[in-house]
Amino acid sequence: MTAPLRVGIAGLGTVGAGTVRVLTAHRDEIARRSGRAIDIVAVSARDAGKDRGIDLSGVSWTDDPLTLAANPDVDAVVELIGGSEGVAKTLCETALTNGKHVITANKALIAHHGQALAVAAEEAGVALAFEAAVAGGIPILKALREGLAANAISRVYGILNGTCNYILTEMRDTGREFDDVLAEAQAEGYAEADPGFDIDGVDAAHKLAILASLAFGTQIDFTSVHVEGIRHISPVDLAFAKELGFGIKLLGIATETVAGIEQRVHPCMVPLDAPINHVDGVFNAVVAEGDFVDRVMMEGRGAGAGPTASAVVADIIDIARGNMVPGFARKAVELAPPRPISMAAYRGCYYLRFEVVDKPGVFGGIAQALGAHNVSMESIIQRARDPGEPVPVVMTTHDTLESDMIAAVDAIAALDAVVMTPRIIRIEDL
Amino acid sequence: MTAPLRVGIAGLGTVGAGTVRVLTAHRDEIARRSGRAIDIVAVSARDAGKDRGIDLSGVSWTDDPLTLAANPDVDAVVELIGGSEGVAKTLCETALTNGKHVITANKALIAHHGQALAVAAEEAGVALAFEAAVAGGIPILKALREGLAANAISRVYGILNGTCNYILTEMRDTGREFDDVLAEAQAEGYAEADPGFDIDGVDAAHKLAILASLAFGTQIDFTSVHVEGIRHISPVDLAFAKELGFGIKLLGIATETVAGIEQRVHPCMVPLDAPINHVDGVFNAVVAEGDFVDRVMMEGRGAGAGPTASAVVADIIDIARGNMVPGFARKAVELAPPRPISMAAYRGCYYLRFEVVDKPGVFGGIAQALGAHNVSMESIIQRARDPGEPVPVVMTTHDTLESDMIAAVDAIAALDAVVMTPRIIRIEDL
Repeated sequence: MTAPLRVGIAGLGTVGAGTVRVLTAHRDEIARRSGRAIDIVAVSARDAGKDRGIDLSGVSWTDDPLTLAANPDVDAVVELIGGSEGVAKTLCETALTNGKHVITANKALIAHHGQALAVAAEEAGVALAFEAAVAGGIPILKALREGLAANAISRVYGILNGTCNYILTEMRDTGREFDDVLAEAQAEGYAEADPGFDIDGVDAAHKLAILASLAFGTQIDFTSVHVEGIRHISPVDLAFAKELGFGIKLLGIATETVAGIEQRVHPCMVPLDAPINHVDGVFNAVVAEGDFVDRVMMEGRGAGAGPTASAVVADIIDIARGNMVPGFARKAVELAPPRPISMAAYRGCYYLRFEVVDKPGVFGGIAQALGAHNVSMESIIQRARDPGEPVPVVMTTHDTLESDMIAAVDAIAALDAVVMTPRIIRIEDL
Repeated sequence: MTAPLRVGIAGLGTVGAGTVRVLTAHRDEIARRSGRAIDIVAVSARDAGKDRGIDLSGVSWTDDPLTLAANPDVDAVVELIGGSEGVAKTLCETALTNGKHVITANKALIAHHGQALAVAAEEAGVALAFEAAVAGGIPILKALREGLAANAISRVYGILNGTCNYILTEMRDTGREFDDVLAEAQAEGYAEADPGFDIDGVDAAHKLAILASLAFGTQIDFTSVHVEGIRHISPVDLAFAKELGFGIKLLGIATETVAGIEQRVHPCMVPLDAPINHVDGVFNAVVAEGDFVDRVMMEGRGAGAGPTASAVVADIIDIARGNMVPGFARKAVELAPPRPISMAAYRGCYYLRFEVVDKPGVFGGIAQALGAHNVSMESIIQRARDPGEPVPVVMTTHDTLESDMIAAVDAIAALDAVVMTPRIIRIEDL
């Protein structure tokens, strides 16, 4: 049997401890599958005394993660510190330079520096593996890189943030307001104390940029992702959506067209019977559309110690087995330059919701604003009217250019009778 | 760049022609991903003159597939002939013995002879790859073997036959009878002229046996799979199921318990909100439950030229890349012996449907039969009664031993007032 793969783990939070737990619990079976043992030889974390419920006897301990990158006994460094800059980045860079494989769950790091790190890994002839960075336990990167490698992927999209999906599912099922459900999610540990990273779509955007790179063979282009979160979604929107035959999901969507690559994260209206609309609660799902395979959807837990550690350890096993498929499916130096498309050039159907005071001429004003900006209405819902009271008006449009839609909504918002910032939600053709 | 991988394709039916199409359409991109070109150097099929819409100029043609196994210019043989015995088997055996990689979409062959073929591949130091044998384009074998390799899998189950799923979906949505929908499916090409292989569950059983081997690290044990098909499902059952909160799906389910490994293919009642219940039409889906990752579901097209060729070519790319993970996730010689559990020892809840002529004492007789065999009723539905006319009676049970259930149903069937063979459908806890 080959010599063991010697692993150093930086960061012993939930995922780090989970990774130790997996490697310990399935030590023999993992060795059988890998053809060699996987030994944890070193760990780094701040507090050596803290009880993490894991046995680290015989494992070298350091409070400086960078020493793992220099440790001659370490073949592979597992980076579970987090953050796109600082020590996580330095650790990965140094480890790669020193000829050590790097496994990370750090989506922000990969979204910002994946290209440079992958090039460094190739120069050193080692692996940069980051399955855990996207959709937790779902082996979607492996699927795009290997299982679906025979296909040209035209679109990849998914529910990439469990916190948002949990909140939207709760709002839909209970009719409660966003703030209320968020507070509950925070109390239950499904949302961070500082939730912006999740609910404003940044976390999903990190993951989408990684997926797009793998799907289309282009360098990661995080800065071009159009990002909107779910703060403005109201239970009213979820109810109207249902009436119109839609659910509302925060999706990350990357599409390749002749004009370039479109990457966007925002709340979407999706058909009630679309497979992704059935993915509820904290679950994530990713759909890939390939020219031969058609649609493949993968669903599972996108976060948490167990699922994330499952992905981290799968990467370690791949390295132990000698599977050295490049992280981005082809050599990083061969990835094409980004080809971003401006969101203003996006075309699609829209859901609009206004609050208007019903007085003479208001609908004429709205209709005029829409017409002046080439927006063609498909349906309209307006119910209870109490003269003088604000009433919600909901419309859906035919295929419309985003820049026209924005201009029309700005014009409508400026009307006297419109009393709330109009809400728009894009309707997806899934 | 490494020398091209030279491929010989045996069988140019739908999937064979599809494989040629994928390798031709994405030749450059596949070379980029593989780090080397993949060249089709030889094909075999019966009719050289037939127009398959593919360009095979410059490719050596033979009508004897076995010559591919002897061709010194062929590095890898793609077996797309089909059948568990005969030329397909001989071709694979000979190719492996001659040190050629083998890629196959042949589920029957792998279910019956996968163990021996995998051992032969290991002895020769080549790959035996069969992703296309299970669930078409869904890269589920790779997921079990690699992406979820960190987990102990406790259960794997799925919709493994698109024909059955299409028929059950149509029956549910239209209320039509099985025979009627089958005839239509045959006319539309979703079902074979001789449909028994699909609708009696054999095809799903082949796939389940392969999945179970990969999931649990045991030798394939096709003969132990309990198999029932969908011929006896009636629209009445689908309607009652819905009323009780269930859908009906033909599932293959493999579970590992301390007592052994249970493998069964039969119609199942699944909760209406279970993710797998939303998988409709010809789509397949596989769910794997791992101790760290929890539940992962993968959904996609389980058949057809494009999806199947997608899986075949993914295997070829893996081989070209030098990815040599054993087909069954560990060395075939290390696979554990089968540990089958008899279906009689299965425990679960059941749906029962009788037709009874409503006369005094009939319910007493049924209740007595159930009680005598330790079957405890959970609910009962009986509606319109017309004295003297047969009426359907539907019951669900609490947790029951299969052998008790069979005995109780036999006793009930023997009652004078029971006019139809009682139907049982197992209710799954998913």
